Amino acid sequence: MRVRILGIGMGPRHLTQEVAGALRGCDYAVAARKRDDDGLLALRRAVCDAHGVPLVAVPDPERDRDDPADYPAAVGSWHEARVAAYERVLGERGGTAAFLVWGDPSLYDSTLRIVARIAERGVVPVDYDVLPGVAAPQLLAARHRIVLHEVGRPVHVTPARRLREAVDAGQDNIVVMLGGAPAFEGLEQWSVWWGANLGTDTEALVAGRVGDVLPAIAAARARARERAGWVMDTALLRRTT
Amino acid sequence: MRVRILGIGMGPRHLTQEVAGALRGCDYAVAARKRDDDGLLALRRAVCDAHGVPLVAVPDPERDRDDPADYPAAVGSWHEARVAAYERVLGERGGTAAFLVWGDPSLYDSTLRIVARIAERGVVPVDYDVLPGVAAPQLLAARHRIVLHEVGRPVHVTPARRLREAVDAGQDNIVVMLGGAPAFEGLEQWSVWWGANLGTDTEALVAGRVGDVLPAIAAARARARERAGWVMDTALLRRTT
Repeated sequence: MRVRILGIGMGPRHLTQEVAGALRGCDYAVAARKRDDDGLLALRRAVCDAHGVPLVAVPDPERDRDDPADYPAAVGSWHEARVAAYERVLGERGGTAAFLVWGDPSLYDSTLRIVARIAERGVVPVDYDVLPGVAAPQLLAARHRIVLHEVGRPVHVTPARRLREAVDAGQDNIVVMLGGAPAFEGLEQWSVWWGANLGTDTEALVAGRVGDVLPAIAAARARARERAGWVMDTALLRRTT
Repeated sequence: MRVRILGIGMGPRHLTQEVAGALRGCDYAVAARKRDDDGLLALRRAVCDAHGVPLVAVPDPERDRDDPADYPAAVGSWHEARVAAYERVLGERGGTAAFLVWGDPSLYDSTLRIVARIAERGVVPVDYDVLPGVAAPQLLAARHRIVLHEVGRPVHVTPARRLREAVDAGQDNIVVMLGGAPAFEGLEQWSVWWGANLGTDTEALVAGRVGDVLPAIAAARARARERAGWVMDTALLRRTT
C-alpha cells in the first residue's frame, strides 16, 4: 500500500497545488484524535471535506509528560504505541492513505518517524513519500513581515525547552517552537517576535523588546488559550546589538 | 499603492491557494532579471502566465562578489541600488504589485528588506504584506524523507560560508543554504543529505556518510550546473553519534 505524508501548512489556505492534488488521489486520510482536543483535528477534517476524502480519526495513545528526565525514552515508547495504532488502521484499510501534517513534516513532527517505523517493521508493507508545506517559522516571519535572521547570519531553531541551552551556548538569533511559554528571564533586552496558534482564528501576535512586551504576551497567550482551549507558541528571539 | 510579497515555494506546484488567489488579484508582478540568468526568472514568468498576471522584469544591479571582507557593506550598497530600481518601477506603475519570492521570504532573501526600505523612504508610499511559501529546507527534508533534527533537538540554519564557524561552535545538526559547495573538510564522519537546484527539473539529491558520498555530490553538482547553467546547494549535515 501507499502512504503520502502531506504538509498542509498552517491551515486550509496554505495547501499547495501539489498537496491538494495528492490528497484528492488518496482513498482516505488518517489523523490523531487526542484526548485533549487541540482543535487541529477539526481543521484537518475541514481540509479533507474540501477535497472529498474521508478522514479516519485514530485515538492517540496517552503520552507521559510528567517525566522530562528521560525525554527521548518517553517520546520513544509513545511513538511505538502510535506506530501500532496507525499500523492497524493501514493494515485494515490498505489503498492509498494520506497523513495530514499541520505545518510541515520536517520540524518537530512525529509523522515521518511513525511511518518510517511501520515500513521498517514490514507487518504492513508501505511505500511512502513526503510533500512539503508551509512551516510555522515561515508563517511567524510573514505575519511580522520579517526575515528570520540578519544579513548573511544563521538562525537557530530549537524547542522552547532548550531555549536556555541555546542562549548559554552563545546563540543570538533563535526560533523557539513547541511552546510552552518561552522562559524569557534574563532576555529582557532582546527583541522578540511572538505568535500563538498561528494560522488559526485564535492567532495572536506580539513584537517588541522582551522587557516591554512580556505582559502583552502573557495576556495574549491567556486569551488565545481561553478562546481555543489550547495554545501553541512560536517565537523569534534576537539579541539586540 | 500596495505590494504583496508572495512566497511561491520551490516551483509552480508549491503555490498555496492563498498565494495563487493573491497573485490573481495583483495588477502585475516584478522580478529581478540577472545578468547571469539563473533560470528562476523563467520559472516566475511561468507562474505569472498561469495566473494571468503580467511580469515586469527589473534589471538587477551588479553585485560585487569579490570583496567578502566587508560582506554586510557590499550587500548593503547592492540593496540600495535594487531599492532604487524597484522604487522606480512601482512609482511608474502604481496599483497592486506582487514580488514573487522563490522559496519563502523569511530565509536568505532580500525582498522584504528592499520593500521595507522603499516604504521607509516614502518616495513611493507602499503598504505591504507577506504570504508564506514552502522553503528550501522543507523541500530538502521531503525529498530525503527526513525530519531536520533528532527528537527534541535543535537545527541550526546558516549560509554555506558560515558552516565552519557553526561546526567550530559545536553545532552538530546544520542546514546550509546559499551554496556554493559546502566545505566538507573534516566532516568525513558526518551524515549529509544534499540537494541542488531543488524543485527544478535539474534537481539532484545525494545522501550518505560525507566521506563516502563526496565524489557523488561533486559529480551531481557538476551535472546540475551543466544542465541548468547554474547550481544552488542546500544540505543538512549531522554529526554521527
